[in-house]
Amino acid sequence: MERKQQRKVDKGVKLKVMCLGGLEEIGKNMTVLEYGDDIIVIDCGMGFPDDDMPGVDLVIPDISYLINNAHKIRGILITHGHEDHIGAVPYILQQIDAPIYGTRLSLGIIEGKLDENPPPNYPELYTVEAGDVVNLGVFKAEFIHVNHSIADACAIAIKTPVGLVYHSGDFKLDVSPIDGKMMDLARIGQLGNEGVTLLLCESTNAERPGFTPSERTVGSSLERIFNQYENKRLIIATFSSNVHRVQQIINTSARHNRKVVILGRSMVNVIGAAAELGYIELPDGVLIDVSEMKRYKPDEITIITTGSQGEPMSALHRIAFSEHNQVKINANDVVILSSSAIPGNEKFVGRIINALVRNGVRVVHESSEDLHVSGHACREEIKLLMALLKPKYLMPIHGEYRHLYANKDIGEFMGIPADRIFVSDLGRVLEIDRKGARFNGEVPAGNVLVDGSGVGDIGSVVLRDRKHLAEDGLVVIVATVDSYGEIVSGPDVVSRGFVYVKESEELMARVKEIATQSILKVMTKRNRDWTTIKNNIKDDVAKFVFKETKRKPMILPVIMDI
Amino acid sequence: MERKQQRKVDKGVKLKVMCLGGLEEIGKNMTVLEYGDDIIVIDCGMGFPDDDMPGVDLVIPDISYLINNAHKIRGILITHGHEDHIGAVPYILQQIDAPIYGTRLSLGIIEGKLDENPPPNYPELYTVEAGDVVNLGVFKAEFIHVNHSIADACAIAIKTPVGLVYHSGDFKLDVSPIDGKMMDLARIGQLGNEGVTLLLCESTNAERPGFTPSERTVGSSLERIFNQYENKRLIIATFSSNVHRVQQIINTSARHNRKVVILGRSMVNVIGAAAELGYIELPDGVLIDVSEMKRYKPDEITIITTGSQGEPMSALHRIAFSEHNQVKINANDVVILSSSAIPGNEKFVGRIINALVRNGVRVVHESSEDLHVSGHACREEIKLLMALLKPKYLMPIHGEYRHLYANKDIGEFMGIPADRIFVSDLGRVLEIDRKGARFNGEVPAGNVLVDGSGVGDIGSVVLRDRKHLAEDGLVVIVATVDSYGEIVSGPDVVSRGFVYVKESEELMARVKEIATQSILKVMTKRNRDWTTIKNNIKDDVAKFVFKETKRKPMILPVIMDI
Repeated sequence: MERKQQRKVDKGVKLKVMCLGGLEEIGKNMTVLEYGDDIIVIDCGMGFPDDDMPGVDLVIPDISYLINNAHKIRGILITHGHEDHIGAVPYILQQIDAPIYGTRLSLGIIEGKLDENPPPNYPELYTVEAGDVVNLGVFKAEFIHVNHSIADACAIAIKTPVGLVYHSGDFKLDVSPIDGKMMDLARIGQLGNEGVTLLLCESTNAERPGFTPSERTVGSSLERIFNQYENKRLIIATFSSNVHRVQQIINTSARHNRKVVILGRSMVNVIGAAAELGYIELPDGVLIDVSEMKRYKPDEITIITTGSQGEPMSALHRIAFSEHNQVKINANDVVILSSSAIPGNEKFVGRIINALVRNGVRVVHESSEDLHVSGHACREEIKLLMALLKPKYLMPIHGEYRHLYANKDIGEFMGIPADRIFVSDLGRVLEIDRKGARFNGEVPAGNVLVDGSGVGDIGSVVLRDRKHLAEDGLVVIVATVDSYGEIVSGPDVVSRGFVYVKESEELMARVKEIATQSILKVMTKRNRDWTTIKNNIKDDVAKFVFKETKRKPMILPVIMDI
Repeated sequence: MERKQQRKVDKGVKLKVMCLGGLEEIGKNMTVLEYGDDIIVIDCGMGFPDDDMPGVDLVIPDISYLINNAHKIRGILITHGHEDHIGAVPYILQQIDAPIYGTRLSLGIIEGKLDENPPPNYPELYTVEAGDVVNLGVFKAEFIHVNHSIADACAIAIKTPVGLVYHSGDFKLDVSPIDGKMMDLARIGQLGNEGVTLLLCESTNAERPGFTPSERTVGSSLERIFNQYENKRLIIATFSSNVHRVQQIINTSARHNRKVVILGRSMVNVIGAAAELGYIELPDGVLIDVSEMKRYKPDEITIITTGSQGEPMSALHRIAFSEHNQVKINANDVVILSSSAIPGNEKFVGRIINALVRNGVRVVHESSEDLHVSGHACREEIKLLMALLKPKYLMPIHGEYRHLYANKDIGEFMGIPADRIFVSDLGRVLEIDRKGARFNGEVPAGNVLVDGSGVGDIGSVVLRDRKHLAEDGLVVIVATVDSYGEIVSGPDVVSRGFVYVKESEELMARVKEIATQSILKVMTKRNRDWTTIKNNIKDDVAKFVFKETKRKPMILPVIMDI
């Protein structure tokens, strides 16, 4: 009887899958699965602001939906420890409580963040290993080992009442990984044979043909460069989270009898944590402090540093612009960029290269050598995943629309009918039941801007004003009027970001005249309606300034009455 | 006797070579040669502002040196008609008078600019053809045909009293050019045999190995794509100045029985001018107006449009975001980007692609097909030029430092001793006489920012303020005080670009209190020193705001006295 009722209730319940957060990329920072009274959250990442968000420090997902359904949340599952998958954890935990499940390295990095920015209730952190299964309400989530540009990355296979949902995480197939652990194709194949309802598949490299090369190919390039520049000091910049890359640099240095100096806060932190947790092996005595460097000849030193994206505060930037206290560069140095510029960072990277070459430093970078490999699956790897899983439905995630649609093409090529492939949108709800899958409705989703300690108090009006101020500057016009409707002081004119003050004295004098006329025009009519007076000033001054300068500064009139 | 004296005077005179203007690229917008009382200027281009120049429309060279030596200027020589080589002409002619020498297409484009923005004295424009020699004081300048991504491009070989100076212009070697005219290697070889003192060599692609492919390879790709998408309407975006590319698109369209629609102001202008001047051949009836498009089926139409760099006002942008009145897109369209993104534009191009694919449009772009070739010489072409010219001295130009140094490496590889290669800087003077060549001194050089109708009235202070305003917004604090040192009105607080007003009422109320205290603290001491009072307000409010919000808005106090 009870059982029958249960089944009856189940009949109406649907699995809901939705993506929250992610700037131009969908399903990157956070994916949510909901079934009845149970919700699980996969990843909890942040984004970096676009050019059109001046002053914004970072961007986190809008979790209104989770806040409204807080009682349903069974846990947050973390696929891997990159910022775009974990960076929002400290902010989200200000608003909801939930246990966090992830592998050792992911949780190690999260712990560091929580220590810096502790939430009201410190969460329970559950360490899992690939192969572990976690029970969360109706869901059973299995962590599955994949290769990626950070150690300990996982996909997550979730058993749900409507069948298996496979979340690919960020992945690539590396047949010769540095830690010896290849992506668990056997288990993935087994899941495929048991039946997969929905594949959530990352799309970053879905436009790129072929297979992504193995991390090990970078090792061969490093070996070649170490031989080529055996008489030089080597300064190598890479992503701090790429533990295997750092391991290869350390191993190559040790083989070439070089000591290794680690520079840059995040590099020091991550390498420290990784060594402590056993993800990185340090040959005895290979690491030295930057202060000990002077005891060695240049050709006995490798420096590993942050700054591969041209970040203005990074160690490499300070080195390149001769602002680093302990590392001075000269023609005895070779800088190696073991990275590729993330779109939008090309100019910053270029500036560092220019500064280095001007100092006589040789710079070896990606365009000429095999110094970096991607951490994401290219087309053939995505096909391989689809061939193993044979999913009924496909939802491309983790990419801009161009990448999601490219992934859709791959799905169709692999025989998934077009009407079973769902290119989603932030907040759009994919609903699955025994009858099928379809988009149905939307939940609040999008991005919350963080500036300083303010979360969510920057919105489109503030950004629009910032852009306006940035492009044309500001003219403030202040006047004091008395109760007889006469101007007793001012109008004074102050400008910022508009024109050189000394060259614009005459212009400002005329702005003053015009503002005076604007006020008097209305005030003589015994009108004391400040809004009208201010709008008058704004219109008259704006018109005059545009005629004279072809610019449209923000005009800010302030009327004081006594 | 006279002759002897002449020689004596000559002995002290040196050839000076200097680069004026160019943002991060040296020797791109303008190069100046001076010998005694004669100056010639090669190119007169503009730059587009960097991210850190908000509101700036364009950037032109600082020509103080030319203004101070206006009587010496014999002429401006134009290598080709790209903006970075001609765009500053209308602005520079506001300040100096000089005749302009260039090929027909270059002058045609310049004339269009001068009509829009006429200088006080309309310049004499002298049309030259490759092979022509122009006498300018002591200089004899010969125009030499080269291949580039615009028609009618030239290098310039200048006979000077200290020997021949060869300015490469922008060039590539195209052994199968669309107009049948290969770079004039024969004449260049002849010059090399006669002896070359200095080679000024462009460096854009000096980091790239091999040869740049011929423009004709794009033709084969177009043919393939026209066949592949024979049932679709084709929308092709490219640079309007690339007349040969446009010619190929028109020819391919005509072969496939498609009519061609031209969209975008600069595309319409340039194609019009090029057709008029005979640089482009239009098969009868191939061009139709956009309004006639509805009479044809999608597969009978090719649209050629601007917007290949993702420019927000371009026709392609408006099409992609459904804001174009006459062109609506759907799944029957294929958009082809026959271009590559200039560094810094990747994100803008990406946004257009995302918008298109969301509308079901297929987008074919460079990363997957051979749809674009560079207009600049790669390493092997630069070597070829050096091998033919055998210059005594080399000065790499037209590139960021990384490119200039890469070009220096090529020079050394080709046997030019390192101490005869001069990597210059804006305004640095390379001096050549019979004894040798050396850097000696500097002239004013750099960049002048143009914003609206203001030329040069935007400087570092204005830009710094704009950046500050953009990143943290603004808080204006206004108070009126009377002659007794009492506050009679205010302080009033107005903010823009800082925080949502409705969420910050309490914060603003406290700012008001703090400002009041700051004023009273000083005013009670009978101090009426506005500067001190204002600094007080600034410091106190800034400290409070930072504590509360971790933000640093610009604080602008205004004190009115009655």
